[in-house]
Amino acid sequence: MTLKVYADRMSQPSRAVIIFCKVNGIEFEEIKVDLSKRQNLSPEFKEINPMRQVPTIVDGDGRFKLFESHAILIYLACASPGVADHWYPADLFKRAKINSVLDWHHSNLRRGAAEFVLNSALAPALGLPLNPQAAAEAEKILSASLGMIESFWLKGNGPFLLGSSQPSIADLSLVCEIMQLEVLDEEDRNRILSPHKKVLQLIEETRNATRPHFDELHAILYKVKARLRELRVAGTMTGDKPSSTTE
Amino acid sequence: MTLKVYADRMSQPSRAVIIFCKVNGIEFEEIKVDLSKRQNLSPEFKEINPMRQVPTIVDGDGRFKLFESHAILIYLACASPGVADHWYPADLFKRAKINSVLDWHHSNLRRGAAEFVLNSALAPALGLPLNPQAAAEAEKILSASLGMIESFWLKGNGPFLLGSSQPSIADLSLVCEIMQLEVLDEEDRNRILSPHKKVLQLIEETRNATRPHFDELHAILYKVKARLRELRVAGTMTGDKPSSTTE
Repeated sequence: MTLKVYADRMSQPSRAVIIFCKVNGIEFEEIKVDLSKRQNLSPEFKEINPMRQVPTIVDGDGRFKLFESHAILIYLACASPGVADHWYPADLFKRAKINSVLDWHHSNLRRGAAEFVLNSALAPALGLPLNPQAAAEAEKILSASLGMIESFWLKGNGPFLLGSSQPSIADLSLVCEIMQLEVLDEEDRNRILSPHKKVLQLIEETRNATRPHFDELHAILYKVKARLRELRVAGTMTGDKPSSTTE
Repeated sequence: MTLKVYADRMSQPSRAVIIFCKVNGIEFEEIKVDLSKRQNLSPEFKEINPMRQVPTIVDGDGRFKLFESHAILIYLACASPGVADHWYPADLFKRAKINSVLDWHHSNLRRGAAEFVLNSALAPALGLPLNPQAAAEAEKILSASLGMIESFWLKGNGPFLLGSSQPSIADLSLVCEIMQLEVLDEEDRNRILSPHKKVLQLIEETRNATRPHFDELHAILYKVKARLRELRVAGTMTGDKPSSTTE
Protein backbone atom coordinates (compact mmCIF):
# COMPACT_ATOMS: atom_id res chain seq x y z
CA MET A 1 0.00 0.00 0.00
CA THR A 2 1.18 3.51 -0.83
CA LEU A 3 2.40 5.80 1.93
CA LYS A 4 -0.45 8.02 3.12
CA VAL A 5 0.30 11.61 4.17
CA TYR A 6 -2.46 13.32 6.16
CA ALA A 7 -1.82 17.01 5.73
CA ASP A 8 -3.13 20.55 5.39
CA ARG A 9 -0.95 22.71 3.16
CA MET A 10 -1.64 25.65 5.48
CA SER A 11 0.42 23.75 8.07
CA GLN A 12 4.11 24.50 7.62
CA PRO A 13 5.34 21.03 8.74
CA SER A 14 2.79 19.42 6.39
CA ARG A 15 4.35 21.33 3.51
CA ALA A 16 7.86 20.26 4.52
CA VAL A 17 6.88 16.58 4.45
CA ILE A 18 5.06 16.84 1.09
CA ILE A 19 7.92 18.78 -0.55
CA PHE A 20 10.38 16.17 0.77
CA CYS A 21 8.34 13.32 -0.76
CA LYS A 22 7.98 15.08 -4.11
CA VAL A 23 11.63 16.14 -4.40
CA ASN A 24 12.80 12.62 -3.59
CA GLY A 25 10.34 10.77 -5.79
CA ILE A 26 8.66 9.05 -2.84
CA GLU A 27 5.27 7.78 -3.94
CA PHE A 28 2.49 8.91 -1.61
CA GLU A 29 -1.18 9.72 -1.36
CA GLU A 30 -1.97 13.16 0.08
CA ILE A 31 -5.11 13.17 2.23
CA LYS A 32 -6.33 16.62 3.16
CA VAL A 33 -7.24 17.25 6.79
CA ASP A 34 -8.74 20.75 6.66
CA LEU A 35 -7.77 22.49 9.89
CA SER A 36 -10.06 25.47 9.21
CA LYS A 37 -12.98 23.01 9.05
CA ARG A 38 -11.67 21.27 12.19
CA GLN A 39 -11.40 17.95 10.35
CA ASN A 40 -8.46 17.14 12.63
CA LEU A 41 -10.99 16.87 15.49
CA SER A 42 -13.10 14.21 13.74
CA PRO A 43 -13.41 10.74 15.33
CA GLU A 44 -11.95 9.21 12.13
CA PHE A 45 -8.76 11.28 12.37
CA LYS A 46 -8.48 10.65 16.11
CA GLU A 47 -8.09 6.95 15.25
CA ILE A 48 -5.11 7.84 13.08
CA ASN A 49 -3.54 10.39 15.44
CA PRO A 50 -4.91 10.89 18.96
CA MET A 51 -2.89 14.14 19.14
CA ARG A 52 -5.08 15.37 16.23
CA GLN A 53 -2.14 17.03 14.51
CA VAL A 54 -0.97 17.13 10.94
CA PRO A 55 1.17 15.96 9.31
CA THR A 56 0.66 12.29 10.14
CA ILE A 57 1.76 9.40 7.95
CA VAL A 58 0.53 5.84 7.66
CA ASP A 59 2.96 3.39 6.07
CA GLY A 60 3.67 -0.34 5.89
CA ASP A 61 0.27 -1.76 4.92
CA GLY A 62 -1.50 0.65 7.26
CA ARG A 63 0.17 -0.67 10.37
CA PHE A 64 2.77 2.02 10.97
CA LYS A 65 1.43 5.41 12.05
CA LEU A 66 3.77 8.30 12.77
CA PHE A 67 3.36 11.97 13.62
CA GLU A 68 5.68 14.91 14.42
CA SER A 69 7.17 16.22 11.19
CA HIS A 70 10.84 15.91 12.18
CA ALA A 71 10.37 12.26 13.11
CA ILE A 72 8.53 11.75 9.80
CA LEU A 73 11.27 13.44 7.75
CA ILE A 74 13.97 11.36 9.45
CA TYR A 75 11.97 8.16 8.94
CA LEU A 76 11.35 8.90 5.25
CA ALA A 77 15.01 9.87 4.67
CA CYS A 78 16.18 6.58 6.23
CA ALA A 79 13.45 4.25 4.90
CA SER A 80 13.21 5.44 1.30
CA PRO A 81 15.71 4.18 -1.26
CA GLY A 82 17.33 6.86 -3.36
CA VAL A 83 17.18 9.79 -0.94
CA ALA A 84 20.47 11.68 -1.38
CA ASP A 85 22.73 11.64 1.68
CA HIS A 86 22.74 15.43 2.11
CA TRP A 87 19.12 15.41 3.30
CA TYR A 88 20.07 13.48 6.47
CA PRO A 89 23.74 12.47 6.32
CA ALA A 90 24.80 9.05 7.56
CA ASP A 91 27.89 10.69 9.09
CA LEU A 92 27.39 10.67 12.86
CA PHE A 93 28.70 14.20 13.44
CA LYS A 94 26.78 15.83 10.60
CA ARG A 95 23.62 14.00 11.63
CA ALA A 96 24.02 15.12 15.24
CA LYS A 97 24.28 18.76 14.15
CA ILE A 98 21.12 18.46 12.05
CA ASN A 99 19.30 16.90 15.03
CA SER A 100 20.50 19.85 17.12
CA VAL A 101 19.02 22.38 14.66
CA LEU A 102 15.74 20.45 14.54
CA ASP A 103 15.48 20.31 18.36
CA TRP A 104 16.36 23.99 18.68
CA HIS A 105 13.64 24.83 16.15
CA HIS A 106 10.80 23.60 18.43
CA SER A 107 11.21 26.10 21.25
CA ASN A 108 12.57 28.98 19.21
CA LEU A 109 11.71 29.66 15.56
CA ARG A 110 8.61 27.44 15.53
CA ARG A 111 7.23 28.82 18.76
CA GLY A 112 7.82 32.44 17.77
CA ALA A 113 6.66 32.17 14.17
CA ALA A 114 3.57 30.01 14.75
CA GLU A 115 2.30 32.15 17.62
CA PHE A 116 3.03 35.44 15.88
CA VAL A 117 1.27 34.42 12.66
CA LEU A 118 -1.72 33.04 14.58
CA ASN A 119 -2.17 36.03 16.85
CA SER A 120 -1.45 38.76 14.33
CA ALA A 121 -3.09 37.38 11.18
CA LEU A 122 -4.50 33.87 11.02
CA ALA A 123 -6.80 33.75 14.07
CA PRO A 124 -9.92 35.18 12.34
CA ALA A 125 -9.71 32.47 9.70
CA LEU A 126 -9.94 29.90 12.51
CA GLY A 127 -12.79 31.68 14.27
CA LEU A 128 -10.51 33.11 16.96
CA PRO A 129 -9.85 36.73 17.97
CA LEU A 130 -6.51 38.40 17.19
CA ASN A 131 -4.33 38.85 20.28
CA PRO A 132 -1.90 41.78 19.95
CA GLN A 133 -0.27 41.14 23.34
CA ALA A 134 0.47 37.50 22.53
CA ALA A 135 1.69 38.62 19.08
CA ALA A 136 4.10 41.11 20.67
CA GLU A 137 5.52 38.42 22.97
CA ALA A 138 5.86 36.00 20.06
CA GLU A 139 7.59 38.61 17.89
CA LYS A 140 10.42 38.84 20.42
CA ILE A 141 11.03 35.07 20.21
CA LEU A 142 10.66 35.10 16.42
CA SER A 143 13.10 37.98 15.86
CA ALA A 144 15.66 36.52 18.26
CA SER A 145 15.37 33.17 16.47
CA LEU A 146 15.85 34.70 13.02
CA GLY A 147 18.86 36.57 14.41
CA MET A 148 20.32 33.32 15.68
CA ILE A 149 19.78 31.59 12.34
CA GLU A 150 21.50 34.52 10.59
CA SER A 151 24.47 34.79 12.96
CA PHE A 152 24.98 31.17 14.03
CA TRP A 153 23.23 28.46 12.02
CA LEU A 154 24.14 30.15 8.72
CA LYS A 155 27.78 30.68 9.66
CA GLY A 156 30.09 28.98 7.20
CA ASN A 157 30.74 28.90 3.49
CA GLY A 158 27.69 27.17 2.03
CA PRO A 159 24.31 28.91 1.71
CA PHE A 160 22.44 26.28 3.76
CA LEU A 161 22.25 25.70 7.52
CA LEU A 162 25.47 24.50 9.18
CA GLY A 163 27.42 25.92 6.22
CA SER A 164 26.35 23.12 3.90
CA SER A 165 26.38 23.39 0.13
CA GLN A 166 23.23 21.27 -0.20
CA PRO A 167 19.97 21.31 1.82
CA SER A 168 19.09 18.97 4.68
CA ILE A 169 15.72 18.20 6.26
CA ALA A 170 16.52 21.00 8.73
CA ASP A 171 16.61 23.58 5.92
CA LEU A 172 13.28 22.33 4.64
CA SER A 173 11.65 22.40 8.08
CA LEU A 174 12.89 25.86 9.07
CA VAL A 175 12.28 27.46 5.69
CA CYS A 176 8.68 26.16 5.53
CA GLU A 177 8.18 27.73 8.97
CA ILE A 178 9.60 31.08 7.85
CA MET A 179 7.45 31.00 4.70
CA GLN A 180 4.37 31.12 6.94
CA LEU A 181 5.20 34.82 7.39
CA GLU A 182 3.92 35.32 3.82
CA VAL A 183 0.34 35.53 5.16
CA LEU A 184 1.22 38.59 7.26
CA ASP A 185 0.62 42.23 6.38
CA GLU A 186 3.48 43.49 4.18
CA GLU A 187 4.54 45.88 6.92
CA ASP A 188 4.80 43.16 9.59
CA ARG A 189 6.56 40.77 7.23
CA ASN A 190 9.14 43.34 6.15
CA ARG A 191 9.83 44.61 9.65
CA ILE A 192 10.53 41.09 10.87
CA LEU A 193 12.26 39.47 7.88
CA SER A 194 14.13 42.18 6.00
CA PRO A 195 16.95 42.66 8.58
CA HIS A 196 18.01 39.04 7.96
CA LYS A 197 19.63 38.96 4.51
CA LYS A 198 21.16 35.50 4.88
CA VAL A 199 17.78 34.09 5.95
CA LEU A 200 16.22 35.60 2.81
CA GLN A 201 19.00 33.99 0.78
CA LEU A 202 18.36 30.64 2.51
CA ILE A 203 14.72 30.78 1.42
CA GLU A 204 15.75 31.40 -2.20
CA GLU A 205 18.35 28.63 -2.16
CA THR A 206 15.84 26.18 -0.68
CA ARG A 207 13.24 27.22 -3.27
CA ASN A 208 15.78 26.64 -6.07
CA ALA A 209 16.83 23.26 -4.68
CA THR A 210 13.23 22.01 -4.48
CA ARG A 211 11.67 23.50 -7.64
CA PRO A 212 8.92 23.33 -8.78
CA HIS A 213 7.44 21.73 -5.65
CA PHE A 214 8.34 24.57 -3.29
CA ASP A 215 6.21 27.14 -5.15
CA GLU A 216 3.39 24.65 -5.75
CA LEU A 217 3.12 23.88 -2.03
CA HIS A 218 3.31 27.50 -0.92
CA ALA A 219 0.72 28.82 -3.40
CA ILE A 220 -2.01 28.40 -0.76
CA LEU A 221 -0.40 31.04 1.46
CA TYR A 222 -1.00 33.82 -1.07
CA LYS A 223 -4.65 32.83 -1.50
CA VAL A 224 -5.14 32.85 2.27
CA LYS A 225 -3.39 36.21 2.54
CA ALA A 226 -5.86 37.72 0.07
CA ARG A 227 -8.78 36.16 1.96
CA LEU A 228 -7.52 37.55 5.27
CA ARG A 229 -7.32 41.00 3.71
CA GLU A 230 -10.97 40.71 2.60
CA LEU A 231 -11.99 39.59 6.10
CA ARG A 232 -10.21 42.59 7.61
CA VAL A 233 -11.87 45.02 5.20
CA ALA A 234 -15.28 43.45 5.85
CA GLY A 235 -14.65 43.60 9.59
CA THR A 236 -13.71 47.30 9.39
CA MET A 237 -16.79 48.13 7.32
CA THR A 238 -19.33 46.32 9.51
CA GLY A 239 -17.52 46.61 12.82
CA ASP A 240 -17.89 42.86 13.20
CA LYS A 241 -15.08 40.54 14.05
CA PRO A 242 -14.43 38.24 11.10
CA SER A 243 -15.15 34.68 12.08
CA SER A 244 -15.44 32.46 9.01
CA THR A 245 -12.98 29.76 7.96
CA THR A 246 -10.41 30.08 5.20
CA GLU A 247 -12.28 28.01 2.60
CA MET B 1 40.46 13.70 25.35
CA THR B 2 37.55 12.78 27.57
CA LEU B 3 34.03 13.84 26.66
CA LYS B 4 33.16 17.08 28.46
CA VAL B 5 29.59 17.63 29.69
CA TYR B 6 28.72 21.22 30.60
CA ALA B 7 25.75 20.95 32.91
CA ASP B 8 23.78 22.22 35.89
CA ARG B 9 22.04 19.43 37.78
CA MET B 10 19.09 21.78 38.36
CA SER B 11 18.49 21.56 34.60
CA GLN B 12 16.37 18.51 33.78
CA PRO B 13 17.99 17.82 30.38
CA SER B 14 21.43 18.12 32.01
CA ARG B 15 20.43 15.36 34.45
CA ALA B 16 19.19 13.14 31.61
CA VAL B 17 22.53 13.37 29.79
CA ILE B 18 24.60 12.73 32.93
CA ILE B 19 22.46 9.75 34.01
CA PHE B 20 22.76 8.33 30.49
CA CYS B 21 26.56 8.57 30.59
CA LYS B 22 26.78 7.01 34.06
CA VAL B 23 24.37 4.15 33.35
CA ASN B 24 26.19 3.29 30.13
CA GLY B 25 29.72 3.58 31.48
CA ILE B 26 30.59 6.48 29.18
CA GLU B 27 33.65 8.25 30.55
CA PHE B 28 33.09 12.00 30.89
CA GLU B 29 34.08 15.10 32.79
CA GLU B 30 31.19 17.05 34.31
CA ILE B 31 31.75 20.81 34.21
CA LYS B 32 29.27 22.79 36.27
CA VAL B 33 27.68 25.83 34.65
CA ASP B 34 25.73 27.35 37.54
CA LEU B 35 22.57 28.85 36.08
CA SER B 36 21.64 30.58 39.35
CA LYS B 37 24.97 32.42 39.15
CA ARG B 38 24.37 33.11 35.44
CA GLN B 39 27.58 31.34 34.49
CA ASN B 40 25.87 30.38 31.23
CA LEU B 41 26.05 34.07 30.26
CA SER B 42 29.84 34.27 30.65
CA PRO B 43 31.99 35.03 27.58
CA GLU B 44 33.84 31.72 28.13
CA PHE B 45 30.65 29.68 27.91
CA LYS B 46 29.41 31.69 24.92
CA GLU B 47 32.45 30.38 23.03
CA ILE B 48 31.26 26.84 23.75
CA ASN B 49 27.56 27.42 23.13
CA PRO B 50 26.33 30.74 21.68
CA MET B 51 22.79 29.72 22.72
CA ARG B 52 24.09 29.78 26.33
CA GLN B 53 22.17 26.65 27.27
CA VAL B 54 23.05 23.52 29.19
CA PRO B 55 23.65 20.72 28.62
CA THR B 56 26.36 21.14 26.01
CA ILE B 57 29.01 18.55 25.19
CA VAL B 58 32.46 18.85 23.71
CA ASP B 59 33.88 15.67 22.20
CA GLY B 60 36.50 14.53 19.70
CA ASP B 61 39.62 16.36 20.90
CA GLY B 62 37.60 19.49 21.62
CA ARG B 63 36.52 19.95 18.02
CA PHE B 64 32.95 18.68 18.20
CA LYS B 65 30.51 20.83 20.16
CA LEU B 66 26.86 19.85 20.49
CA PHE B 67 23.85 21.18 22.38
CA GLU B 68 20.16 20.25 22.69
CA SER B 69 19.81 17.28 25.00
CA HIS B 70 17.89 15.02 22.60
CA ALA B 71 20.54 15.47 19.92
CA ILE B 72 23.20 14.77 22.57
CA LEU B 73 21.48 11.60 23.81
CA ILE B 74 21.10 10.30 20.24
CA TYR B 75 24.74 11.11 19.45
CA LEU B 76 26.00 9.39 22.61
CA ALA B 77 23.78 6.34 22.04
CA CYS B 78 25.11 5.96 18.47
CA ALA B 79 28.75 6.93 19.08
CA SER B 80 29.49 5.05 22.29
CA PRO B 81 30.37 1.38 22.13
CA GLY B 82 28.42 -0.83 24.50
CA VAL B 83 25.20 1.18 24.79
CA ALA B 84 22.38 -1.40 24.85
CA ASP B 85 20.06 -1.25 21.84
CA HIS B 86 16.93 -0.50 23.92
CA TRP B 87 18.15 3.04 24.65
CA TYR B 88 17.84 4.02 20.96
CA PRO B 89 16.96 0.96 18.88
CA ALA B 90 18.57 0.45 15.48
CA ASP B 91 15.20 -0.78 14.17
CA LEU B 92 13.85 1.95 11.89
CA PHE B 93 10.26 1.78 13.14
CA LYS B 94 11.12 1.70 16.84
CA ARG B 95 13.59 4.55 16.38
CA ALA B 96 10.99 6.62 14.51
CA LYS B 97 8.52 6.23 17.38
CA ILE B 98 11.13 7.32 19.91
CA ASN B 99 11.93 10.37 17.75
CA SER B 100 8.20 11.13 17.70
CA VAL B 101 7.98 11.07 21.52
CA LEU B 102 11.07 13.29 21.79
CA ASP B 103 9.69 15.84 19.30
CA TRP B 104 6.28 15.84 20.99
CA HIS B 105 8.00 16.49 24.33
CA HIS B 106 9.31 19.94 23.25
CA SER B 107 5.99 21.71 22.79
CA ASN B 108 4.00 19.77 25.35
CA LEU B 109 5.43 18.26 28.55
CA ARG B 110 8.61 20.34 28.49
CA ARG B 111 6.83 23.59 27.82
CA GLY B 112 4.16 22.99 30.46
CA ALA B 113 6.45 21.63 33.15
CA ALA B 114 9.34 24.08 32.75
CA GLU B 115 7.07 27.14 32.72
CA PHE B 116 4.91 25.92 35.59
CA VAL B 117 7.89 25.15 37.82
CA LEU B 118 9.57 28.46 36.98
CA ASN B 119 6.49 30.62 37.53
CA SER B 120 5.11 28.85 40.58
CA ALA B 121 8.30 27.98 42.50
CA LEU B 122 11.74 28.51 41.02
CA ALA B 123 11.63 32.16 39.91
CA PRO B 124 12.72 33.68 43.27
CA ALA B 125 15.86 31.52 43.22
CA LEU B 126 16.74 33.11 39.88
CA GLY B 127 15.97 36.66 41.03
CA LEU B 128 12.64 36.76 39.17
CA PRO B 129 9.11 37.33 40.49
CA LEU B 130 6.57 34.49 40.62
CA ASN B 131 3.88 34.79 37.94
CA PRO B 132 0.60 33.09 38.95
CA GLN B 133 -1.11 33.85 35.63
CA ALA B 134 1.70 32.30 33.58
CA ALA B 135 1.73 29.37 36.03
CA ALA B 136 -2.01 28.80 35.51
CA GLU B 137 -1.58 28.79 31.71
CA ALA B 138 1.37 26.41 31.99
CA GLU B 139 -0.54 24.06 34.30
CA LYS B 140 -3.11 23.47 31.57
CA ILE B 141 -0.42 22.38 29.12
CA LEU B 142 1.34 20.33 31.80
CA SER B 143 -1.79 18.47 32.91
CA ALA B 144 -2.89 17.79 29.34
CA SER B 145 0.60 16.46 28.57
CA LEU B 146 0.65 14.15 31.59
CA GLY B 147 -2.82 12.92 30.57
CA MET B 148 -1.53 12.16 27.08
CA ILE B 149 1.48 10.27 28.44
CA GLU B 150 -0.85 8.26 30.69
CA SER B 151 -3.46 7.44 28.04
CA PHE B 152 -1.37 7.25 24.87
CA TRP B 153 2.40 7.00 25.24
CA LEU B 154 2.07 4.48 28.09
CA LYS B 155 -0.45 2.32 26.25
CA GLY B 156 0.82 -1.23 25.83
CA ASN B 157 2.15 -4.02 27.95
CA GLY B 158 5.53 -2.81 29.15
CA PRO B 159 5.94 -0.17 31.86
CA PHE B 160 7.98 2.20 29.68
CA LEU B 161 6.91 4.61 26.92
CA LEU B 162 5.63 2.98 23.73
CA GLY B 163 4.85 -0.17 25.72
CA SER B 164 8.52 -1.15 25.97
CA SER B 165 9.90 -3.48 28.60
CA GLN B 166 13.16 -1.53 28.85
CA PRO B 167 13.80 2.23 28.91
CA SER B 168 14.81 4.39 25.95
CA ILE B 169 16.33 7.87 25.87
CA ALA B 170 12.74 9.16 25.64
CA ASP B 171 11.88 7.68 29.05
CA LEU B 172 14.97 9.30 30.53
CA SER B 173 14.24 12.70 29.00
CA LEU B 174 10.56 12.81 29.95
CA VAL B 175 11.04 11.40 33.45
CA CYS B 176 13.81 13.92 34.26
CA GLU B 177 11.37 16.64 33.18
CA ILE B 178 8.58 15.29 35.40
CA MET B 179 10.99 14.98 38.34
CA GLN B 180 11.41 18.77 38.23
CA LEU B 181 7.96 18.90 39.89
CA GLU B 182 9.69 17.74 43.09
CA VAL B 183 10.65 21.35 43.86
CA LEU B 184 6.98 22.38 44.01
CA ASP B 185 4.82 22.78 47.11
CA GLU B 186 3.44 19.37 48.11
CA GLU B 187 -0.07 20.57 47.35
CA ASP B 188 0.77 21.66 43.79
CA ARG B 189 2.79 18.53 43.11
CA ASN B 190 0.06 16.20 44.33
CA ARG B 191 -2.74 18.01 42.53
CA ILE B 192 -0.87 17.75 39.23
CA LEU B 193 0.83 14.36 39.46
CA SER B 194 -1.36 12.09 41.59
CA PRO B 195 -4.14 11.57 38.99
CA HIS B 196 -1.58 9.91 36.72
CA LYS B 197 -0.82 6.50 38.25
CA LYS B 198 0.97 5.10 35.21
CA VAL B 199 3.21 8.18 35.06
CA LEU B 200 4.12 7.63 38.73
CA GLN B 201 4.91 4.02 37.90
CA LEU B 202 7.05 5.14 34.94
CA ILE B 203 9.12 7.31 37.29
CA GLU B 204 9.71 4.34 39.63
CA GLU B 205 10.60 1.98 36.76
CA THR B 206 13.06 4.53 35.34
CA ARG B 207 14.57 5.06 38.79
CA ASN B 208 15.00 1.29 39.21
CA ALA B 209 16.53 0.89 35.75
CA THR B 210 19.12 3.62 36.37
CA ARG B 211 20.04 3.07 40.03
CA PRO B 212 21.94 4.48 41.84
CA HIS B 213 22.56 7.34 39.42
CA PHE B 214 18.94 8.49 39.24
CA ASP B 215 18.75 9.32 42.95
CA GLU B 216 22.25 10.79 43.00
CA LEU B 217 21.40 13.20 40.18
CA HIS B 218 18.04 14.22 41.63
CA ALA B 219 19.29 14.87 45.18
CA ILE B 220 19.79 18.56 44.33
CA LEU B 221 16.04 19.04 43.84
CA TYR B 222 15.26 18.29 47.47
CA LYS B 223 17.94 20.72 48.66
CA VAL B 224 16.55 23.45 46.41
CA LYS B 225 13.01 22.69 47.58
CA ALA B 226 14.07 23.26 51.20
CA ARG B 227 15.86 26.48 50.21
CA LEU B 228 12.77 27.76 48.36
CA ARG B 229 10.68 27.09 51.47
CA GLU B 230 13.12 29.17 53.54
CA LEU B 231 12.96 31.97 50.98
CA ARG B 232 9.16 31.94 51.09
CA VAL B 233 9.09 32.04 54.89
CA ALA B 234 11.64 34.88 54.93
CA GLY B 235 9.61 36.75 52.29
CA THR B 236 6.40 36.33 54.31
CA MET B 237 8.08 37.55 57.52
CA THR B 238 9.70 40.65 56.02
CA GLY B 239 7.17 41.31 53.28
CA ASP B 240 10.08 41.40 50.82
CA LYS B 241 10.22 39.48 47.62
CA PRO B 242 12.96 36.86 47.87
CA SER B 243 15.66 37.58 45.33
CA SER B 244 18.82 35.64 46.11
CA THR B 245 20.22 32.75 44.09
CA THR B 246 19.96 29.09 45.05
CA GLU B 247 23.56 28.69 46.21
